[in-house]
Amino acid sequence: MDTAHVTTFDEALALHPDGDGLSGRVAPGWDVFGIPHGGYLLALTGKAVLTSTGAPDLFTVTTHYLCKARHEPITFRVHRVGGSRRLTTVTAIATQGEDVVLSAMASVGDRTTIAGPTWHRDAPWDPGSARLTPRAGTPEMAAGGGLRTPEIATRAGERLDVATLGFAGGTPDGTGELRAVAEGLPADQVGALLACDVTPPAAWNALGMSGWVPTVELTAHVRARSGTGPLSVTAGTRHVTGGFLEEDALVHDSQGRLMVQSRQLARWSA
Amino acid sequence: MDTAHVTTFDEALALHPDGDGLSGRVAPGWDVFGIPHGGYLLALTGKAVLTSTGAPDLFTVTTHYLCKARHEPITFRVHRVGGSRRLTTVTAIATQGEDVVLSAMASVGDRTTIAGPTWHRDAPWDPGSARLTPRAGTPEMAAGGGLRTPEIATRAGERLDVATLGFAGGTPDGTGELRAVAEGLPADQVGALLACDVTPPAAWNALGMSGWVPTVELTAHVRARSGTGPLSVTAGTRHVTGGFLEEDALVHDSQGRLMVQSRQLARWSA
Repeated sequence: MDTAHVTTFDEALALHPDGDGLSGRVAPGWDVFGIPHGGYLLALTGKAVLTSTGAPDLFTVTTHYLCKARHEPITFRVHRVGGSRRLTTVTAIATQGEDVVLSAMASVGDRTTIAGPTWHRDAPWDPGSARLTPRAGTPEMAAGGGLRTPEIATRAGERLDVATLGFAGGTPDGTGELRAVAEGLPADQVGALLACDVTPPAAWNALGMSGWVPTVELTAHVRARSGTGPLSVTAGTRHVTGGFLEEDALVHDSQGRLMVQSRQLARWSA
Repeated sequence: MDTAHVTTFDEALALHPDGDGLSGRVAPGWDVFGIPHGGYLLALTGKAVLTSTGAPDLFTVTTHYLCKARHEPITFRVHRVGGSRRLTTVTAIATQGEDVVLSAMASVGDRTTIAGPTWHRDAPWDPGSARLTPRAGTPEMAAGGGLRTPEIATRAGERLDVATLGFAGGTPDGTGELRAVAEGLPADQVGALLACDVTPPAAWNALGMSGWVPTVELTAHVRARSGTGPLSVTAGTRHVTGGFLEEDALVHDSQGRLMVQSRQLARWSA
């Protein structure tokens, strides 16, 4: 496989009709140390659901990660389960050969037909007020040492808020929070789905770095169809119990518009 | 139908084998003003998944509410999708006659085979420090006026933290938070699933009371198999955008053990 070719976002998300489903290829490089990234697979799922249904908007997507994906062809089969006048619920199953890689449930519709108030308890994080790391994958970042940079951070153009990185030097600040911008992702709903899982595990800024925090299930509420880049991400964990934890994330656009709110259940396997 | 008979929790959650599924009856009285309560249907789904799979523990359950349930027989069909050595993912579809009432995805396993650290950023709410309303359904509560009491609050033995009820008098405090105890529910994983949706909409304590805040999708992470009653619930909303909002809830037992952490996507239809 030619891993020297850098796959763009559009190439990595490409899907084509294939029998009763949609097929694409899990692109090399959209990885966490060689393993395809959960947010990338979530974005691919979201695109498969939009393409299959023809709906313009995702509202909620839940993905269960069942086995590690490989850098090989992947097929999504999307089925309508039911719904109301405005929202339709579907299941989506992604397979690679005989393996069920992920299982998803999503609701779609047309956001422009639904209106209502807007209220936020908290102001969004302002990346302009933060000192950010050099863009992942740059020589400056590599020279910084400390935190290893997964491939996905480079693809997403991730820069982390330095104030949240004490854990990389062995001194987590106890907040369980991380903040980042993702300068390399499109500011639309599919890009925002990838962004919600793009930071290192936020729990590292409480419990310290561990080897691996695999996602069991991730649910993303999509709050907007498109925005203005770059996207910013705040991620946080508040409750670790018996080897499991939640990680919540908010993805905003550069105008402070909430794009995605997500929560995942993950395993803590130190 | 004999609605004079008060159905107990065990009766309301009863399921029996029925062909390739499990059937029960949506019990009258476990309602929000005549409409079957979403948390009750979630609990019924959780029990159907546990019964069908034979697994002792739920880890995550996502439910999409597709149409209003009726006080009639309901059938759950649970199918295994895939999984790893420790966790299995299933879908569950609930039907009443020709109608698909809800569609769910869940993961199950055996909690005793998985270990890891415990850490909480925040201490749990202590109901002992709060002034609680009289138990729902009591003459004292009825005499209190203001907030109408749905049937489910009576079944769950709900008492609300008076400090969070300013909205009932027209003065929400702007926190978007509500707190309650549920003295009438069992302190196990199925009872905790019901409890996570038992408060009035927390957004009322920011935007004021509206007519209806229907759930689109609810995901509950189950964090413990059983605890010590009574259960307590803290619920909060932070982001309302274009007619949609999240409601997060934590369900603790009386010893401060986290039982369930949930998030729902709901419609704001004032």
